[in-house]
Amino acid sequence: MKEDTLGDVGEREAIRRLCAGLPTSSDVVVGVGDDAAIVRPAAGSGEDLVLTSDAVILGTHFDGKASPEAVGHKAVARGLSDLAAMGAVPAWALMDLSAPASIPFSYLEGIYRGAARTAAKYELAVVGGDTARSSDLAVHVFAAGRVPRGQARLRSGARPGDALYVTGELGGSILGRHLTFEPRVKEGIWLRGGGWANAMIDLSDGLAMDACHVAGQSSVTLRVVAGSIPVSAAAASFPDGRSAVSHALNDGEDFELLFSVPAGRATEFEAAWRKAFSLKCTKIGSVEQGPGVLVLEDERGRRDILSPKPYDHFGRHSEHE
Amino acid sequence: MKEDTLGDVGEREAIRRLCAGLPTSSDVVVGVGDDAAIVRPAAGSGEDLVLTSDAVILGTHFDGKASPEAVGHKAVARGLSDLAAMGAVPAWALMDLSAPASIPFSYLEGIYRGAARTAAKYELAVVGGDTARSSDLAVHVFAAGRVPRGQARLRSGARPGDALYVTGELGGSILGRHLTFEPRVKEGIWLRGGGWANAMIDLSDGLAMDACHVAGQSSVTLRVVAGSIPVSAAAASFPDGRSAVSHALNDGEDFELLFSVPAGRATEFEAAWRKAFSLKCTKIGSVEQGPGVLVLEDERGRRDILSPKPYDHFGRHSEHE
Repeated sequence: MKEDTLGDVGEREAIRRLCAGLPTSSDVVVGVGDDAAIVRPAAGSGEDLVLTSDAVILGTHFDGKASPEAVGHKAVARGLSDLAAMGAVPAWALMDLSAPASIPFSYLEGIYRGAARTAAKYELAVVGGDTARSSDLAVHVFAAGRVPRGQARLRSGARPGDALYVTGELGGSILGRHLTFEPRVKEGIWLRGGGWANAMIDLSDGLAMDACHVAGQSSVTLRVVAGSIPVSAAAASFPDGRSAVSHALNDGEDFELLFSVPAGRATEFEAAWRKAFSLKCTKIGSVEQGPGVLVLEDERGRRDILSPKPYDHFGRHSEHE
Repeated sequence: MKEDTLGDVGEREAIRRLCAGLPTSSDVVVGVGDDAAIVRPAAGSGEDLVLTSDAVILGTHFDGKASPEAVGHKAVARGLSDLAAMGAVPAWALMDLSAPASIPFSYLEGIYRGAARTAAKYELAVVGGDTARSSDLAVHVFAAGRVPRGQARLRSGARPGDALYVTGELGGSILGRHLTFEPRVKEGIWLRGGGWANAMIDLSDGLAMDACHVAGQSSVTLRVVAGSIPVSAAAASFPDGRSAVSHALNDGEDFELLFSVPAGRATEFEAAWRKAFSLKCTKIGSVEQGPGVLVLEDERGRRDILSPKPYDHFGRHSEHE
C-alpha cells in the first residue's frame, strides 16, 4: 500500500492532525485554530499576548522576480495582518532567514531592509532571529502583539443579526498586491478598541474560505450578497476568463479584514469609520442563525450554500460540532 | 567585480550586518546578540519575557538517517536550551514546518510526536505555527519563557574573580548527542533563581567560541584550564586523530551550560549543586581582568590566547570596543 504524503493529506488537514497532540497549558487562552494564539503572561496581567508565525518561501509565496525588499515586507506584513485580525498592538518579532550559501549578500540585505521598514512603520521591534544555510530561500517571522485582557477579536465571535463588512477590495492579489499590501493594523486596533467588531479575521485563504472559517467557528451562517463584494481592478481585469466576483471570492492573500458588527450599531459604525479612515469599508452581508456555513446570494436572490471543507474543521470549531 | 555571497560573508558576520538596521523599542531589554531577546510585557510587569527562535534544517542540522522523533526533539530542545541559558521558565512556542509535498505524512507525524513529547516534558505549550510546502525540510521553533524582572542571566555578566563552570561532558556531539541532548532547563532556572550564576550561555558553537562570546560581551578574560575540561566518551573516541580536548573545545552543539559563579560562593555553590543534581558540573577555570579574550592554560601552565573572531564581534560586545 502506498504511504500518504503531505501532498495527499493537504496542508490544512495536515495542520489539524499534526497539532492534535501538542501540549497546552492553563495560561493559553486560544491555541491552534484562530489567526493567532492568545496567551496570558501573568495571572493578574491586564494584557494578553497574541502570538503568530508565518513563512515566506521562494517558489511558494514569491518567485524569483520579486524584489528582495518586497519579500521582506511580505514576511513581516503577514505577521502584522494576523495581529491586526485580533485587534492587537504590534510589539516584538523574531526573524529567521534560511538561504543557500551562494545567494548574493546584497539580496539578503534587501530582504532585511524591506522587513525593517515595514516593522518600523507599524512599531514592531525586531529583537532577534536565526540565520542558517539551506537549499531553499525562506523567511520565517514570529510576531507578538498586545491586547487588553480578554479583548482580542476571534473568528468565533459572530452573532446572528450582525452586519458583515470587509475592508478594501478583493481578488487578483497574485498580480502584485500580495507583495505590497498594507496590513490593516490601525483598522484592526480601532475595530477592537471601539468595540465595533464581534468577530474578525484577515483574508489570507480567500473570502469564501475565510468566511467559512468564521461561520464554522461561530456556529452561525454568514450570508454574503455576491453583488456587494468590492472587487479590485486586478480581479476585474484578470486574464483568465473567470468573473471578477469569482476572483474576489476565491483568490487568496488579500490581507483585508472581514468582520461582523452588531446590527443595532451598523449605521453608527459606518459614520465612525468614514470619519476615521479613507480606506474603503463595504457591507457585504449579514450573520444569521444556522449550521456554520456560508450562503452566497446572487442578484436574483438565489442562494448557494458553501460548506467549509472537512479540512477546515479545526480548532474551536470542532468543539461545537 | 564578483558580488559577495552569503557564503563569502559568513553566517555570524551576516547576522551582525543584517540586524544592524532592525527597529527596536523602549520595552526591549536585550535585543540581538545574546542567547535570546528579553522584552518587558508591561511597564509595571514583575516578569520579563525571553524570546528565541531556532531552525533545524535537513542537510544542515540533521541528515536523512535521523529519526523524525529526534528531529522534532532537537527543534524544540534547541529553543529550550536558549531559554535555559537565560534562566527562563519555558512558557509557549510556535512551530513552523516546511516540507516537500512528496514527504511521507508519517514522517511529519514523527516530527510532531518528538516535538510534543519534549515540549510537554519541559512544560512548554505549543500554541500554533504554520505549515508550508518547500523543497527543503525545515522546522523553525519560536519559544518564549518567563523570568523575574531584570533577573535573566546574560553573556555579559561575568566579573573578575568568578569561578567558571560547565555542565555535563563536551565534544563529539555530532556522533549522536546533538539529536538526543537534554536541554538544561531546570539547571538554568536553579542557577538563576539561587543567584549563583553571574554570566551564563548555552554551548552551541563549541566551548572555545562560546567562552569568547562571554569574555567579549563581559569585557573580561576567561581562563580555561585545558586539563580540567570534562570530555565526553564520544570526544575521546572520535575517529579522526584529533585529541579529546580539541573536540571538547571546538565541537558545536553540546547544549551544556557554561556559567560563572562569584569566587566567594564557589564552595557553597558546589555543595548546593551536588545536593540538587546528579548531573556533572565541573570547574574549568576562572574570570580575570582582561581584554575580552579566552586564555587556554595547559598542564605546564603555558597560556594560549584565543581571540573572538571578527565575526563574533556583535551585540553588546561591540559596544565595549
